[in-house]
Amino acid sequence: MPSVSPSLAAAMSDAAASVNETLERILPKTDFAERKLFDAMRYGALNGGKRLRPFLVKSAASLFGVSDDCVMRTAAAVECVHCYSLIHDDLPAMDNSDLRRGMPTVHKKYDEATAILAGDALLTIAFEILSDPRTHEDPKVRCNLIAALAKSSGVNGMVGGQMLDLIAETTELDIGAITRLQRMKTGELIAFSAEAGAILGKASVQHHNALRAYAHDLGLAFQIIDDLLDAEGTEEETGKSVGRDAKAGKATFVTILGAERARSQAKLLSQQAVHHLSVFDGRAKFLEDVASFVVDRKG
Amino acid sequence: MPSVSPSLAAAMSDAAASVNETLERILPKTDFAERKLFDAMRYGALNGGKRLRPFLVKSAASLFGVSDDCVMRTAAAVECVHCYSLIHDDLPAMDNSDLRRGMPTVHKKYDEATAILAGDALLTIAFEILSDPRTHEDPKVRCNLIAALAKSSGVNGMVGGQMLDLIAETTELDIGAITRLQRMKTGELIAFSAEAGAILGKASVQHHNALRAYAHDLGLAFQIIDDLLDAEGTEEETGKSVGRDAKAGKATFVTILGAERARSQAKLLSQQAVHHLSVFDGRAKFLEDVASFVVDRKG
Repeated sequence: MPSVSPSLAAAMSDAAASVNETLERILPKTDFAERKLFDAMRYGALNGGKRLRPFLVKSAASLFGVSDDCVMRTAAAVECVHCYSLIHDDLPAMDNSDLRRGMPTVHKKYDEATAILAGDALLTIAFEILSDPRTHEDPKVRCNLIAALAKSSGVNGMVGGQMLDLIAETTELDIGAITRLQRMKTGELIAFSAEAGAILGKASVQHHNALRAYAHDLGLAFQIIDDLLDAEGTEEETGKSVGRDAKAGKATFVTILGAERARSQAKLLSQQAVHHLSVFDGRAKFLEDVASFVVDRKG
Repeated sequence: MPSVSPSLAAAMSDAAASVNETLERILPKTDFAERKLFDAMRYGALNGGKRLRPFLVKSAASLFGVSDDCVMRTAAAVECVHCYSLIHDDLPAMDNSDLRRGMPTVHKKYDEATAILAGDALLTIAFEILSDPRTHEDPKVRCNLIAALAKSSGVNGMVGGQMLDLIAETTELDIGAITRLQRMKTGELIAFSAEAGAILGKASVQHHNALRAYAHDLGLAFQIIDDLLDAEGTEEETGKSVGRDAKAGKATFVTILGAERARSQAKLLSQQAVHHLSVFDGRAKFLEDVASFVVDRKG
Protein backbone atom coordinates (compact mmCIF):
# COMPACT_ATOMS: atom_id res chain seq x y z
CA MET A 1 0.00 0.00 0.00
CA PRO A 2 1.47 3.38 -0.92
CA SER A 3 1.72 5.80 2.02
CA VAL A 4 -0.22 8.51 0.19
CA SER A 5 -3.38 7.84 -1.84
CA PRO A 6 -3.21 9.35 -5.35
CA SER A 7 -6.09 11.75 -4.67
CA LEU A 8 -4.58 12.94 -1.37
CA ALA A 9 -1.22 13.40 -3.06
CA ALA A 10 -2.86 15.48 -5.80
CA ALA A 11 -4.81 17.57 -3.28
CA MET A 12 -1.69 18.21 -1.17
CA SER A 13 0.33 19.16 -4.19
CA ASP A 14 -2.48 21.50 -5.35
CA ALA A 15 -2.57 23.24 -1.97
CA ALA A 16 1.24 23.53 -1.96
CA ALA A 17 1.24 25.05 -5.46
CA SER A 18 -1.46 27.56 -4.50
CA VAL A 19 0.25 28.69 -1.33
CA ASN A 20 3.60 28.96 -3.12
CA GLU A 21 1.97 31.15 -5.73
CA THR A 22 0.34 33.28 -3.04
CA LEU A 23 3.63 33.64 -1.11
CA GLU A 24 5.44 34.46 -4.35
CA ARG A 25 2.94 37.28 -4.91
CA ILE A 26 2.68 38.54 -1.32
CA LEU A 27 6.31 38.47 -0.21
CA PRO A 28 7.83 41.81 -1.19
CA LYS A 29 10.78 42.42 -3.50
CA THR A 30 13.04 45.45 -3.68
CA ASP A 31 15.98 46.93 -5.56
CA PHE A 32 17.08 48.98 -2.56
CA ALA A 33 20.25 48.28 -0.58
CA GLU A 34 18.39 46.05 1.91
CA ARG A 35 17.60 43.57 -0.85
CA LYS A 36 19.43 40.77 0.95
CA LEU A 37 16.75 40.79 3.65
CA PHE A 38 13.95 40.44 1.09
CA ASP A 39 15.85 37.65 -0.66
CA ALA A 40 16.39 35.83 2.64
CA MET A 41 12.69 36.02 3.48
CA ARG A 42 11.81 34.51 0.13
CA TYR A 43 14.55 31.91 0.41
CA GLY A 44 13.28 30.87 3.84
CA ALA A 45 9.62 30.79 2.81
CA LEU A 46 9.77 29.51 -0.77
CA ASN A 47 12.23 26.62 -0.61
CA GLY A 48 9.80 23.76 -0.85
CA GLY A 49 8.37 21.94 2.13
CA LYS A 50 5.29 19.76 2.34
CA ARG A 51 3.01 22.71 3.14
CA LEU A 52 1.04 20.55 5.56
CA ARG A 53 -0.35 23.60 7.39
CA PRO A 54 -1.74 25.28 4.24
CA PHE A 55 -3.30 21.95 3.29
CA LEU A 56 -5.02 21.81 6.69
CA VAL A 57 -6.29 25.39 6.36
CA LYS A 58 -7.64 24.61 2.91
CA SER A 59 -9.21 21.25 3.78
CA ALA A 60 -10.86 22.61 6.91
CA ALA A 61 -12.10 25.75 5.17
CA SER A 62 -13.56 23.70 2.31
CA LEU A 63 -16.05 22.24 4.82
CA PHE A 64 -17.59 25.70 5.12
CA GLY A 65 -17.36 26.96 1.53
CA VAL A 66 -14.75 29.67 2.15
CA SER A 67 -13.41 31.43 -0.98
CA ASP A 68 -10.02 30.40 -2.36
CA ASP A 69 -8.49 33.85 -1.93
CA CYS A 70 -9.31 34.04 1.78
CA VAL A 71 -8.05 30.51 2.30
CA MET A 72 -4.75 31.02 0.53
CA ARG A 73 -3.94 34.34 2.19
CA THR A 74 -4.57 32.72 5.58
CA ALA A 75 -2.50 29.69 4.60
CA ALA A 76 0.32 31.98 3.48
CA ALA A 77 0.26 33.75 6.85
CA VAL A 78 0.53 30.43 8.72
CA GLU A 79 3.39 29.37 6.48
CA CYS A 80 5.23 32.66 7.11
CA VAL A 81 5.03 31.92 10.84
CA HIS A 82 6.11 28.30 10.35
CA CYS A 83 9.06 29.31 8.16
CA TYR A 84 10.16 32.10 10.51
CA SER A 85 10.26 29.54 13.31
CA LEU A 86 12.44 27.21 11.23
CA ILE A 87 14.85 30.05 10.40
CA HIS A 88 15.24 31.03 14.06
CA ASP A 89 15.35 27.42 15.33
CA ASP A 90 18.18 26.63 12.89
CA LEU A 91 20.38 29.50 14.21
CA PRO A 92 23.75 28.63 15.81
CA ALA A 93 22.48 29.76 19.25
CA MET A 94 19.52 27.37 18.92
CA ASP A 95 19.63 24.03 17.06
CA ASN A 96 22.65 25.06 14.94
CA SER A 97 21.48 23.30 11.76
CA ASP A 98 23.24 23.70 8.44
CA LEU A 99 20.68 21.90 6.32
CA ARG A 100 16.93 22.35 5.87
CA ARG A 101 14.85 20.71 3.15
CA GLY A 102 18.09 19.61 1.50
CA MET A 103 19.39 23.18 1.20
CA PRO A 104 21.68 25.40 3.30
CA THR A 105 19.74 27.04 6.15
CA VAL A 106 19.14 30.80 5.90
CA HIS A 107 22.05 31.79 8.16
CA LYS A 108 24.35 29.51 6.15
CA LYS A 109 23.18 30.91 2.81
CA TYR A 110 23.24 34.53 4.04
CA ASP A 111 24.47 35.30 7.56
CA GLU A 112 23.19 35.17 11.13
CA ALA A 113 22.02 38.77 11.37
CA THR A 114 20.10 38.50 8.10
CA ALA A 115 18.52 35.23 9.27
CA ILE A 116 17.35 36.78 12.54
CA LEU A 117 15.85 39.75 10.68
CA ALA A 118 14.28 37.61 7.94
CA GLY A 119 12.54 35.59 10.65
CA ASP A 120 11.35 38.76 12.39
CA ALA A 121 10.04 40.14 9.10
CA LEU A 122 8.19 36.92 8.20
CA LEU A 123 6.50 36.85 11.59
CA THR A 124 5.50 40.50 11.21
CA ILE A 125 4.16 40.11 7.67
CA ALA A 126 1.96 37.20 8.77
CA PHE A 127 -0.07 39.58 10.91
CA GLU A 128 -0.10 42.21 8.18
CA ILE A 129 -1.57 39.64 5.78
CA LEU A 130 -4.29 38.62 8.25
CA SER A 131 -5.26 42.22 9.06
CA ASP A 132 -5.95 42.99 5.39
CA PRO A 133 -9.62 43.11 4.23
CA ARG A 134 -8.68 40.80 1.33
CA THR A 135 -8.18 37.99 3.86
CA HIS A 136 -11.79 38.29 5.05
CA GLU A 137 -14.36 41.03 4.63
CA ASP A 138 -15.45 40.81 8.28
CA PRO A 139 -12.90 42.57 10.55
CA LYS A 140 -14.07 40.48 13.49
CA VAL A 141 -13.04 37.32 11.65
CA ARG A 142 -9.67 38.90 10.90
CA CYS A 143 -9.18 39.78 14.58
CA ASN A 144 -10.14 36.23 15.58
CA LEU A 145 -7.56 34.82 13.18
CA ILE A 146 -4.88 37.18 14.51
CA ALA A 147 -5.69 36.41 18.15
CA ALA A 148 -5.62 32.65 17.55
CA LEU A 149 -2.41 32.78 15.49
CA ALA A 150 -0.65 34.94 18.08
CA LYS A 151 -1.72 32.63 20.93
CA SER A 152 -0.66 29.47 19.13
CA SER A 153 2.72 30.86 18.05
CA GLY A 154 3.68 32.89 21.14
CA VAL A 155 5.03 32.28 24.60
CA ASN A 156 2.27 29.80 25.51
CA GLY A 157 2.58 28.05 22.16
CA MET A 158 5.36 27.63 19.64
CA VAL A 159 7.97 29.98 21.12
CA GLY A 160 7.43 28.53 24.61
CA GLY A 161 7.78 25.05 23.13
CA GLN A 162 11.09 25.95 21.51
CA MET A 163 12.32 27.23 24.88
CA LEU A 164 11.34 23.91 26.45
CA ASP A 165 13.12 22.10 23.63
CA LEU A 166 16.34 23.94 24.48
CA ILE A 167 15.83 23.18 28.17
CA ALA A 168 15.36 19.49 27.27
CA GLU A 169 19.01 19.39 26.15
CA THR A 170 20.21 19.85 29.73
CA THR A 171 17.24 18.72 31.84
CA GLU A 172 15.64 15.31 31.97
CA LEU A 173 11.97 15.63 31.00
CA ASP A 174 9.39 12.90 31.58
CA ILE A 175 6.80 11.78 29.04
CA GLY A 176 4.26 14.31 30.33
CA ALA A 177 6.69 17.20 29.93
CA ILE A 178 7.74 15.97 26.47
CA THR A 179 4.10 15.78 25.40
CA ARG A 180 3.49 19.31 26.64
CA LEU A 181 6.68 20.50 24.89
CA GLN A 182 5.59 19.03 21.57
CA ARG A 183 2.02 20.22 21.84
CA MET A 184 3.40 23.72 22.27
CA LYS A 185 6.28 23.56 19.82
CA THR A 186 4.48 22.10 16.81
CA GLY A 187 0.98 21.08 17.91
CA GLU A 188 -0.42 24.55 18.52
CA LEU A 189 0.37 25.91 15.06
CA ILE A 190 -0.93 22.76 13.39
CA ALA A 191 -4.08 23.08 15.50
CA PHE A 192 -4.41 26.71 14.46
CA SER A 193 -4.18 25.69 10.80
CA ALA A 194 -7.29 23.53 11.02
CA GLU A 195 -8.96 26.01 13.36
CA ALA A 196 -8.35 28.83 10.86
CA GLY A 197 -10.64 27.07 8.40
CA ALA A 198 -13.37 27.09 11.06
CA ILE A 199 -12.77 30.77 11.92
CA LEU A 200 -12.87 31.79 8.24
CA GLY A 201 -16.08 29.78 7.79
CA LYS A 202 -17.71 31.08 11.00
CA ALA A 203 -18.22 27.46 11.98
CA SER A 204 -20.34 26.30 14.92
CA VAL A 205 -18.56 25.77 18.23
CA GLN A 206 -18.98 22.00 17.77
CA HIS A 207 -17.29 22.01 14.35
CA HIS A 208 -14.62 24.43 15.54
CA ASN A 209 -13.72 22.28 18.53
CA ALA A 210 -13.76 19.09 16.48
CA LEU A 211 -11.23 20.55 14.06
CA ARG A 212 -9.03 21.81 16.86
CA ALA A 213 -9.07 18.46 18.65
CA TYR A 214 -8.36 16.66 15.38
CA ALA A 215 -5.38 18.87 14.62
CA HIS A 216 -3.99 18.60 18.15
CA ASP A 217 -3.83 14.81 17.90
CA LEU A 218 -2.53 15.04 14.36
CA GLY A 219 0.21 17.45 15.47
CA LEU A 220 1.39 15.14 18.20
CA ALA A 221 1.39 12.14 15.85
CA PHE A 222 3.35 14.25 13.37
CA GLN A 223 5.96 15.10 16.00
CA ILE A 224 6.42 11.53 17.16
CA ILE A 225 7.15 10.55 13.56
CA ASP A 226 9.56 13.49 13.31
CA ASP A 227 11.44 12.09 16.31
CA LEU A 228 11.45 8.63 14.69
CA LEU A 229 12.81 10.06 11.45
CA ASP A 230 15.51 11.91 13.37
CA ALA A 231 16.47 8.64 15.09
CA GLU A 232 16.13 6.28 12.12
CA GLY A 233 15.96 8.31 8.89
CA THR A 234 18.77 9.43 6.58
CA GLU A 235 19.62 12.93 5.42
CA GLU A 236 18.68 11.87 1.87
CA GLU A 237 15.18 10.78 2.93
CA THR A 238 14.39 13.68 5.24
CA GLY A 239 16.29 16.53 3.56
CA LYS A 240 17.61 17.74 6.91
CA SER A 241 20.31 16.90 9.44
CA VAL A 242 19.36 13.73 11.37
CA GLY A 243 20.52 12.12 14.60
CA ARG A 244 20.68 15.52 16.29
CA ASP A 245 18.45 14.57 19.22
CA ALA A 246 20.60 11.60 20.15
CA LYS A 247 23.78 13.66 19.72
CA ALA A 248 22.35 16.33 22.01
CA GLY A 249 21.35 13.64 24.53
CA LYS A 250 17.82 14.99 24.34
CA ALA A 251 14.80 13.10 25.61
CA THR A 252 12.22 12.52 22.86
CA PHE A 253 9.21 10.25 22.44
CA VAL A 254 11.60 7.73 20.90
CA THR A 255 14.25 7.77 23.64
CA ILE A 256 11.57 7.44 26.32
CA LEU A 257 9.11 5.04 24.67
CA GLY A 258 11.42 3.20 22.26
CA ALA A 259 10.82 3.17 18.51
CA GLU A 260 8.10 0.54 18.47
CA ARG A 261 5.90 2.01 21.19
CA ALA A 262 6.43 5.49 19.76
CA ARG A 263 5.19 4.31 16.37
CA SER A 264 2.08 2.66 17.80
CA GLN A 265 1.41 5.76 19.89
CA ALA A 266 1.52 7.85 16.70
CA LYS A 267 -0.91 5.45 15.00
CA LEU A 268 -3.27 5.62 17.96
CA LEU A 269 -3.21 9.42 17.90
CA SER A 270 -3.86 9.40 14.17
CA GLN A 271 -6.94 7.17 14.66
CA GLN A 272 -8.12 9.37 17.51
CA ALA A 273 -7.69 12.42 15.26
CA VAL A 274 -9.90 10.84 12.59
CA HIS A 275 -12.50 9.98 15.24
CA HIS A 276 -12.94 13.70 16.05
CA LEU A 277 -13.99 14.24 12.42
CA SER A 278 -17.11 12.07 12.79
CA VAL A 279 -19.21 15.25 13.25
CA PHE A 280 -18.62 15.96 9.56
CA ASP A 281 -20.30 12.71 8.42
CA GLY A 282 -17.56 11.65 6.01
CA ARG A 283 -17.27 15.06 4.33
CA ALA A 284 -13.75 15.57 5.70
CA LYS A 285 -12.13 12.84 3.60
CA PHE A 286 -8.84 14.64 2.95
CA LEU A 287 -8.40 15.46 6.62
CA GLU A 288 -8.98 11.78 7.41
CA ASP A 289 -6.46 10.70 4.77
CA VAL A 290 -3.79 13.14 5.86
CA ALA A 291 -3.87 11.58 9.33
CA SER A 292 -2.65 8.32 7.79
CA PHE A 293 -0.15 10.12 5.58
CA VAL A 294 1.42 11.81 8.60
CA VAL A 295 2.25 8.53 10.34
CA ASP A 296 3.37 6.74 7.15
CA ARG A 297 5.63 9.49 5.80
CA LYS A 298 9.37 8.99 5.26
CA GLY A 299 10.42 12.66 5.26
CA MET B 1 16.65 76.59 30.94
CA PRO B 2 15.90 73.02 31.94
CA SER B 3 15.58 70.65 28.99
CA VAL B 4 12.19 69.35 30.18
CA SER B 5 9.41 71.60 31.46
CA PRO B 6 8.04 70.44 34.84
CA SER B 7 4.57 69.69 33.40
CA LEU B 8 6.02 67.72 30.46
CA ALA B 9 8.26 65.78 32.83
CA ALA B 10 5.25 64.93 35.01
CA ALA B 11 3.16 63.90 32.01
CA MET B 12 5.95 61.72 30.62
CA SER B 13 6.52 60.08 33.94
CA ASP B 14 2.75 59.47 34.31
CA ALA B 15 2.60 57.79 30.90
CA ALA B 16 5.67 55.70 31.73
CA ALA B 17 4.17 54.58 35.03
CA SER B 18 0.87 53.65 33.36
CA VAL B 19 2.48 51.65 30.58
CA ASN B 20 4.78 49.89 33.05
CA GLU B 21 1.76 48.91 35.11
CA THR B 22 -0.06 47.68 31.99
CA LEU B 23 2.97 45.68 30.83
CA GLU B 24 3.38 44.28 34.34
CA ARG B 25 -0.22 43.04 34.16
CA ILE B 26 -0.26 41.87 30.53
CA LEU B 27 3.11 40.11 30.26
CA PRO B 28 2.54 36.53 31.35
CA LYS B 29 4.23 34.69 34.22
CA THR B 30 4.64 30.97 34.71
CA ASP B 31 6.00 28.37 37.10
CA PHE B 32 6.60 25.86 34.31
CA ALA B 33 10.04 24.81 33.12
CA GLU B 34 10.11 27.51 30.43
CA ARG B 35 10.02 30.22 33.09
CA LYS B 36 13.35 31.69 31.90
CA LEU B 37 11.66 32.82 28.69
CA PHE B 38 8.89 34.62 30.58
CA ASP B 39 11.47 36.24 32.86
CA ALA B 40 13.55 37.36 29.88
CA MET B 41 10.49 38.94 28.23
CA ARG B 42 9.74 40.88 31.39
CA TYR B 43 13.39 41.81 31.88
CA GLY B 44 13.57 43.13 28.32
CA ALA B 45 10.29 45.03 28.50
CA LEU B 46 10.24 46.29 32.11
CA ASN B 47 13.76 47.62 32.68
CA GLY B 48 13.04 51.32 32.50
CA GLY B 49 13.37 53.40 29.39
CA LYS B 50 11.88 56.78 28.63
CA ARG B 51 8.67 55.26 27.18
CA LEU B 52 8.60 57.96 24.52
CA ARG B 53 6.35 55.88 22.27
CA PRO B 54 3.67 55.27 24.93
CA PHE B 55 3.75 58.98 25.70
CA LEU B 56 3.10 59.75 22.02
CA VAL B 57 0.22 57.26 21.85
CA LYS B 58 -1.30 58.79 24.97
CA SER B 59 -0.80 62.43 23.96
CA ALA B 60 -2.17 61.87 20.46
CA ALA B 61 -5.14 59.82 21.70
CA SER B 62 -6.00 62.49 24.28
CA LEU B 63 -6.86 64.84 21.38
CA PHE B 64 -9.77 62.53 20.54
CA GLY B 65 -10.98 61.52 24.01
CA VAL B 66 -9.94 57.85 23.82
CA SER B 67 -10.36 55.86 27.06
CA ASP B 68 -7.28 55.18 29.20
CA ASP B 69 -7.58 51.41 28.92
CA CYS B 70 -7.53 51.43 25.12
CA VAL B 71 -4.64 53.87 25.11
CA MET B 72 -2.49 51.92 27.53
CA ARG B 73 -3.05 48.54 25.90
CA THR B 74 -2.05 50.07 22.55
CA ALA B 75 0.95 51.78 24.15
CA ALA B 76 1.98 48.46 25.73
CA ALA B 77 1.83 46.76 22.32
CA VAL B 78 4.07 49.42 20.76
CA GLU B 79 6.50 49.09 23.64
CA CYS B 80 6.61 45.28 23.24
CA VAL B 81 7.63 45.81 19.62
CA HIS B 82 10.19 48.47 20.54
CA CYS B 83 11.71 46.28 23.27
CA TYR B 84 11.81 43.18 21.06
CA SER B 85 13.75 45.22 18.49
CA LEU B 86 16.26 46.32 21.14
CA ILE B 87 16.75 42.72 22.32
CA HIS B 88 17.40 41.46 18.78
CA ASP B 89 19.53 44.49 17.78
CA ASP B 90 21.77 43.94 20.82
CA LEU B 91 22.55 40.31 19.87
CA PRO B 92 26.17 39.33 19.10
CA ALA B 93 25.30 38.75 15.41
CA MET B 94 23.88 42.28 15.21
CA ASP B 95 25.20 45.27 17.23
CA ASN B 96 26.79 43.05 19.90
CA SER B 97 25.94 45.32 22.83
CA ASP B 98 26.51 44.32 26.45
CA LEU B 99 24.72 47.23 28.04
CA ARG B 100 21.23 48.68 27.62
CA ARG B 101 19.67 51.28 29.90
CA GLY B 102 22.60 50.76 32.27
CA MET B 103 21.90 47.03 32.66
CA PRO B 104 23.23 43.86 30.98
CA THR B 105 21.42 43.22 27.70
CA VAL B 106 19.02 40.25 27.60
CA HIS B 107 21.51 37.85 25.98
CA LYS B 108 24.12 38.83 28.59
CA LYS B 109 21.71 38.36 31.49
CA TYR B 110 20.27 35.10 30.10
CA ASP B 111 21.73 33.64 26.90
CA GLU B 112 21.50 34.16 23.17
CA ALA B 113 18.81 31.57 22.46
CA THR B 114 16.59 32.94 25.24
CA ALA B 115 17.10 36.48 23.94
CA ILE B 116 16.07 35.51 20.40
CA LEU B 117 12.96 33.75 21.71
CA ALA B 118 12.06 36.54 24.16
CA GLY B 119 12.16 38.99 21.24
CA ASP B 120 10.01 36.69 19.11
CA ALA B 121 7.50 36.32 21.94
CA LEU B 122 7.29 40.08 22.60
CA LEU B 123 6.64 40.76 18.92
CA THR B 124 3.94 38.09 18.87
CA ILE B 125 2.21 39.27 22.03
CA ALA B 126 2.02 42.82 20.64
CA PHE B 127 -0.39 41.59 17.97
CA GLU B 128 -2.29 39.47 20.48
CA ILE B 129 -2.82 42.57 22.62
CA LEU B 130 -4.08 44.64 19.68
CA SER B 131 -6.45 41.92 18.45
CA ASP B 132 -8.23 41.79 21.84
CA PRO B 133 -11.64 43.53 22.14
CA ARG B 134 -10.38 45.24 25.31
CA THR B 135 -8.04 47.31 23.12
CA HIS B 136 -10.97 48.74 21.14
CA GLU B 137 -14.56 47.60 20.82
CA ASP B 138 -14.57 48.12 17.03
CA PRO B 139 -12.77 45.22 15.28
CA LYS B 140 -12.10 47.46 12.28
CA VAL B 141 -10.10 49.80 14.49
CA ARG B 142 -8.18 46.83 15.88
CA CYS B 143 -7.37 45.62 12.35
CA ASN B 144 -6.25 49.12 11.38
CA LEU B 145 -3.91 49.25 14.38
CA ILE B 146 -2.50 45.81 13.53
CA ALA B 147 -2.00 46.67 9.86
CA ALA B 148 -0.26 49.95 10.68
CA LEU B 149 1.93 48.40 13.39
CA ALA B 150 2.95 45.51 11.12
CA LYS B 151 3.81 47.88 8.26
CA SER B 152 5.84 50.23 10.43
CA SER B 153 7.78 47.45 12.14
CA GLY B 154 8.29 45.03 9.24
CA VAL B 155 10.50 44.70 6.20
CA ASN B 156 9.56 48.14 4.85
CA GLY B 157 9.93 49.71 8.28
CA MET B 158 11.93 48.89 11.38
CA VAL B 159 13.32 45.49 10.36
CA GLY B 160 14.34 46.81 6.93
CA GLY B 161 15.99 49.77 8.66
CA GLN B 162 18.01 47.48 10.91
CA MET B 163 19.17 45.56 7.84
CA LEU B 164 20.30 48.86 6.28
CA ASP B 165 22.06 49.73 9.51
CA LEU B 166 24.08 46.52 9.28
CA ILE B 167 24.83 47.21 5.63
CA ALA B 168 26.04 50.69 6.62
CA GLU B 169 28.93 49.08 8.50
CA THR B 170 30.51 47.90 5.26
CA THR B 171 29.01 50.19 2.60
CA GLU B 172 29.33 53.94 2.33
CA LEU B 173 25.87 55.51 2.44
CA ASP B 174 25.14 59.11 1.48
CA ILE B 175 22.92 61.46 3.46
CA GLY B 176 19.83 60.42 1.49
CA ALA B 177 20.40 56.75 2.26
CA ILE B 178 21.11 57.51 5.93
CA THR B 179 17.89 59.50 6.18
CA ARG B 180 15.94 56.64 4.64
CA LEU B 181 17.66 54.17 6.98
CA GLN B 182 16.73 56.17 10.06
CA ARG B 183 13.17 56.85 8.92
CA MET B 184 12.74 53.10 8.60
CA LYS B 185 14.72 51.98 11.65
CA THR B 186 13.23 54.31 14.26
CA GLY B 187 11.02 56.84 12.46
CA GLU B 188 8.28 54.46 11.36
CA LEU B 189 7.53 53.07 14.82
CA ILE B 190 7.59 56.55 16.35
CA ALA B 191 5.24 57.69 13.58
CA PHE B 192 2.97 54.73 14.30
CA SER B 193 2.84 55.71 17.99
CA ALA B 194 1.30 59.09 17.20
CA GLU B 195 -0.80 57.62 14.40
CA ALA B 196 -2.19 54.99 16.80
CA GLY B 197 -3.83 57.78 18.79
CA ALA B 198 -5.56 58.92 15.60
CA ILE B 199 -6.64 55.38 14.69
CA LEU B 200 -8.04 54.75 18.18
CA GLY B 201 -9.88 58.09 18.03
CA LYS B 202 -11.17 57.53 14.47
CA ALA B 203 -9.64 60.90 13.60
CA SER B 204 -10.23 62.76 10.34
CA VAL B 205 -7.72 62.18 7.55
CA GLN B 206 -6.36 65.69 8.13
CA HIS B 207 -5.68 65.06 11.82
CA HIS B 208 -4.34 61.59 11.12
CA ASN B 209 -1.86 62.86 8.53
CA ALA B 210 -0.80 65.79 10.72
CA LEU B 211 0.10 63.41 13.56
CA ARG B 212 1.98 61.10 11.23
CA ALA B 213 3.95 63.95 9.68
CA TYR B 214 4.71 65.35 13.14
CA ALA B 215 5.99 62.02 14.39
CA HIS B 216 8.07 61.38 11.29
CA ASP B 217 10.00 64.62 11.77
CA LEU B 218 10.20 63.98 15.50
CA GLY B 219 11.59 60.49 14.89
CA LEU B 220 14.33 61.78 12.62
CA ALA B 221 15.27 64.52 15.09
CA PHE B 222 15.35 61.87 17.83
CA GLN B 223 17.73 59.71 15.79
CA ILE B 224 20.12 62.55 14.96
CA ILE B 225 20.40 63.25 18.68
CA ASP B 226 20.96 59.52 19.28
CA ASP B 227 23.89 59.67 16.86
CA LEU B 228 25.23 62.76 18.64
CA LEU B 229 24.96 61.03 22.02
CA ASP B 230 26.77 58.00 20.61
CA ALA B 231 29.55 60.29 19.33
CA GLU B 232 29.76 62.68 22.31
CA GLY B 233 27.92 61.15 25.28
CA THR B 234 29.23 58.95 28.08
CA GLU B 235 27.99 55.54 29.20
CA GLU B 236 26.93 57.13 32.49
CA GLU B 237 24.73 59.72 30.77
CA THR B 238 23.17 57.45 28.17
CA GLY B 239 23.01 54.14 30.05
CA LYS B 240 24.27 52.25 27.02
CA SER B 241 27.54 51.53 25.20
CA VAL B 242 28.69 54.64 23.30
CA GLY B 243 31.18 55.31 20.50
CA ARG B 244 30.03 52.18 18.69
CA ASP B 245 29.25 53.93 15.38
CA ALA B 246 32.74 55.42 15.12
CA LYS B 247 34.33 52.11 16.12
CA ALA B 248 32.33 50.32 13.41
CA GLY B 249 33.34 53.03 10.91
CA LYS B 250 29.66 53.58 10.26
CA ALA B 251 28.30 56.64 8.47
CA THR B 252 25.78 58.55 10.62
CA PHE B 253 24.26 62.02 10.50
CA VAL B 254 27.15 63.13 12.70
CA THR B 255 29.96 61.67 10.60
CA ILE B 256 28.46 63.10 7.41
CA LEU B 257 27.19 66.48 8.61
CA GLY B 258 29.50 67.09 11.56
CA ALA B 259 28.18 67.62 15.10
CA GLU B 260 27.15 71.23 14.68
CA ARG B 261 25.17 70.87 11.47
CA ALA B 262 23.61 67.66 12.77
CA ARG B 263 22.39 69.47 15.87
CA SER B 264 20.88 72.35 13.88
CA GLN B 265 19.26 69.85 11.52
CA ALA B 266 17.63 68.16 14.53
CA LYS B 267 16.37 71.53 15.78
CA LEU B 268 14.95 72.35 12.38
CA LEU B 269 13.13 69.01 12.22
CA SER B 270 11.78 69.57 15.71
CA GLN B 271 10.36 72.96 14.69
CA GLN B 272 8.91 71.46 11.52
CA ALA B 273 7.30 68.71 13.63
CA VAL B 274 5.61 71.32 15.84
CA HIS B 275 4.42 73.18 12.74
CA HIS B 276 2.43 70.11 11.63
CA LEU B 277 0.45 70.35 14.89
CA SER B 278 -1.06 73.74 13.97
CA VAL B 279 -4.26 71.97 12.86
CA PHE B 280 -4.94 71.26 16.55
CA ASP B 281 -5.03 74.99 17.47
CA GLY B 282 -2.74 74.72 20.49
CA ARG B 283 -4.52 71.72 22.00
CA ALA B 284 -1.47 69.46 21.41
CA LYS B 285 0.75 71.20 23.97
CA PHE B 286 2.52 68.06 25.22
CA LEU B 287 3.30 66.91 21.71
CA GLU B 288 4.78 70.35 21.02
CA ASP B 289 6.85 70.22 24.21
CA VAL B 290 8.18 66.73 23.60
CA ALA B 291 9.63 67.93 20.30
CA SER B 292 11.91 70.27 22.26
CA PHE B 293 12.66 67.62 24.85
CA VAL B 294 13.84 65.21 22.16
CA VAL B 295 16.53 67.56 20.85
CA ASP B 296 17.63 68.77 24.30
CA ARG B 297 17.92 65.35 25.95
CA LYS B 298 21.20 63.99 27.32
CA GLY B 299 20.36 60.27 27.29
